[in-house]
Amino acid sequence: MVQVNENYLKLKAGYLFPEISKRVKIFAESNSSKDIIKLGIGDVTEPLPKACRDAMSKALNEMGTNAGFKGYGPEQGYLWLREKIAHNDFLARGCSITPDEIFISDGSKCDSSNILDILGNDNSIAVTDPVYPVYVDSNVMTGRTGEQLNNGTYDGLTYLDISEKNNFLPEIPKSKVDILYLCFPNNPTGATISKSELKKWVDYARENSSLILFDAAYEAFIRDENIPHSIYEIEGAIDCAIEFRSFSKNAGFTGVRCAYTVVPKNLLGLNSKSEKVNLWSLWSRRQSTKFNGVSYIVQRGAEAVYSPEGKKEVKDLIDFYMENANIMKKKLESSGFTVYGGDNAPYIWIKVPDQMTSWDFFDYLLNEASVVGTPGSGFGLAGEGYFRLSAFNSRSNVIDAMERIINI
Amino acid sequence: MVQVNENYLKLKAGYLFPEISKRVKIFAESNSSKDIIKLGIGDVTEPLPKACRDAMSKALNEMGTNAGFKGYGPEQGYLWLREKIAHNDFLARGCSITPDEIFISDGSKCDSSNILDILGNDNSIAVTDPVYPVYVDSNVMTGRTGEQLNNGTYDGLTYLDISEKNNFLPEIPKSKVDILYLCFPNNPTGATISKSELKKWVDYARENSSLILFDAAYEAFIRDENIPHSIYEIEGAIDCAIEFRSFSKNAGFTGVRCAYTVVPKNLLGLNSKSEKVNLWSLWSRRQSTKFNGVSYIVQRGAEAVYSPEGKKEVKDLIDFYMENANIMKKKLESSGFTVYGGDNAPYIWIKVPDQMTSWDFFDYLLNEASVVGTPGSGFGLAGEGYFRLSAFNSRSNVIDAMERIINI
Repeated sequence: MVQVNENYLKLKAGYLFPEISKRVKIFAESNSSKDIIKLGIGDVTEPLPKACRDAMSKALNEMGTNAGFKGYGPEQGYLWLREKIAHNDFLARGCSITPDEIFISDGSKCDSSNILDILGNDNSIAVTDPVYPVYVDSNVMTGRTGEQLNNGTYDGLTYLDISEKNNFLPEIPKSKVDILYLCFPNNPTGATISKSELKKWVDYARENSSLILFDAAYEAFIRDENIPHSIYEIEGAIDCAIEFRSFSKNAGFTGVRCAYTVVPKNLLGLNSKSEKVNLWSLWSRRQSTKFNGVSYIVQRGAEAVYSPEGKKEVKDLIDFYMENANIMKKKLESSGFTVYGGDNAPYIWIKVPDQMTSWDFFDYLLNEASVVGTPGSGFGLAGEGYFRLSAFNSRSNVIDAMERIINI
Repeated sequence: MVQVNENYLKLKAGYLFPEISKRVKIFAESNSSKDIIKLGIGDVTEPLPKACRDAMSKALNEMGTNAGFKGYGPEQGYLWLREKIAHNDFLARGCSITPDEIFISDGSKCDSSNILDILGNDNSIAVTDPVYPVYVDSNVMTGRTGEQLNNGTYDGLTYLDISEKNNFLPEIPKSKVDILYLCFPNNPTGATISKSELKKWVDYARENSSLILFDAAYEAFIRDENIPHSIYEIEGAIDCAIEFRSFSKNAGFTGVRCAYTVVPKNLLGLNSKSEKVNLWSLWSRRQSTKFNGVSYIVQRGAEAVYSPEGKKEVKDLIDFYMENANIMKKKLESSGFTVYGGDNAPYIWIKVPDQMTSWDFFDYLLNEASVVGTPGSGFGLAGEGYFRLSAFNSRSNVIDAMERIINI
């Protein structure tokens, strides 16, 4: 009989968000009269920008004509989109990233897990704790970890705690780690990293020939001018870092699906004979063999994010969600909660009241206020005692949810 | 330094179609006055059906409203689409496939390579020769083969020849194979398989507890009522087969991106303790962890394929391409070529004139007729001496290309 990849069996529970959905569904079924406000999953709620819709509508019309019809596009994405990205997201910030180094995809979740395809199985790996669960689960599923331990962590992974104690900045590992996952602005804590702190990581990676997998999906929410939007703002990062970016959170593309990954051409890895191998070539091969590119219509929508109208609409969306975050933070603080994040990220990271676990607090908020958040422990051991609320919702829902929480 | 997945280094040349693109680009640069007709890659050319465009346009408008906006959808795809598929593509043909067993994706190329994620690395694997290169390359990239041998095959894979000698039907392996890739209507040969022949494969798979990966991306081109569109038309297939389907070739979605995979709930595999493991659960976990679903707008377009207008338009598209195939086949035969396929598939499989290799014939057609096809040897060792032409083009281009070939 066919053998399965039994690494999957090391995953003990369902992926975090399906588990939340299950509990919410059960609650809703027996409390049908209650209006549940979801501040759990980091999913946007506001309409798609008009600039994007107009561009997609135009592309859709083209697809209805013989002259304008587009079949398979380049697996890497259309050059006109990659040029806009290189210019606006990198050159404009002094980062020398070329269109060739940008790979368009249908999502950062795919990219940040698929990237492991091109890397050896014996690399040592470090993740922060708490962490976006996909980084851990994709390592487990590909056999890069041992079994799950009783505390929920996986044998073989290095966990770098982020908590109040270190101001939500992980400490540089004492020993050599081959692959480091960093996400700033951080999901789930909403923490950010300064250029000088990020430089320490780039220096570490260059000294140890490590690879940093940098997730910048939330860069659009940065308000503070001194916080880097891209790791390539740090000198030397093009020698040691891959960056994941997305249109999900800035332009509201969670249901539209478009993201991109930057693989600089000078990134190198080693084969088992210690010969240098170019990572860009491997990723290019991976994408052309296992992927067929993103919908033409969607890519035209993503391109419109960089038009003057698109930029204005994206800015308005970000301002809207960040005002939500501001309201949430102030309300919760005024009510005695200790709250982190929310200044340069759409996530509020609440310290859970004493004697409660993160899942206790989840059930408590769900049952008493009909508000859904995400238990910090769902993001890792060191997330226990914390709780994430997302600023992605309508203004009235945000205000309503805060009132309900305060009045429990 | 980070180690790479050095299985990628076993891949000797670029993926077939990028290699063709390179040669065409070089030719075009030094022959700018010549009008090149591309019958190489199996990419559709006719406009997207109006029913699909209308549905997508409506979905796009919804996305511009607060009430209609859709963020993350279910990773498995929206139920309304999976219900339409189950009803029209399976129940209507007597196959008991439920919506739960259908997983919507952005392409069959992704699915047919990603499926290896959930399967063990030590399974024995058989592919036909010639074969869609993605099956082989994805096995190489995940370390399921040895090195490439001098003849271009990979050590460790079982190749099942399909050629004139066996009427383009592979012979059942003499020994036990764990995973079998079958594609009917066949890419690249255009051959089909009858129910009685396919039943032999299902029987073999059940007797040997093998898993069949059945690619039915071209089922819409079947004209003969006795040829099965789905492997689930064969009794017992739900115990031994996964099926890949696509909207690329029937509704012209190559640039829109939507496909689906059927994983029956009773499919089983084994872990290393010989305990049975449900494959549906593993694939569900894989998709929810590493994928974020298909664009809502695109899924609405796919749903419209099953509307009365959509069905009519898809039928017209198929009729159009199959009339191209008919013209090509007759013209080439009348000019003395030996030609296969083209009756229930959009591919014409030409026997290359004596003394020429497939790549010789590629260069010959490109240089003498400015017509691009695909060398049979690009699909495998047993494809040497053959050449694939695709029926996906405008009527005038098809007629023009045939005249040019005949008059060389």
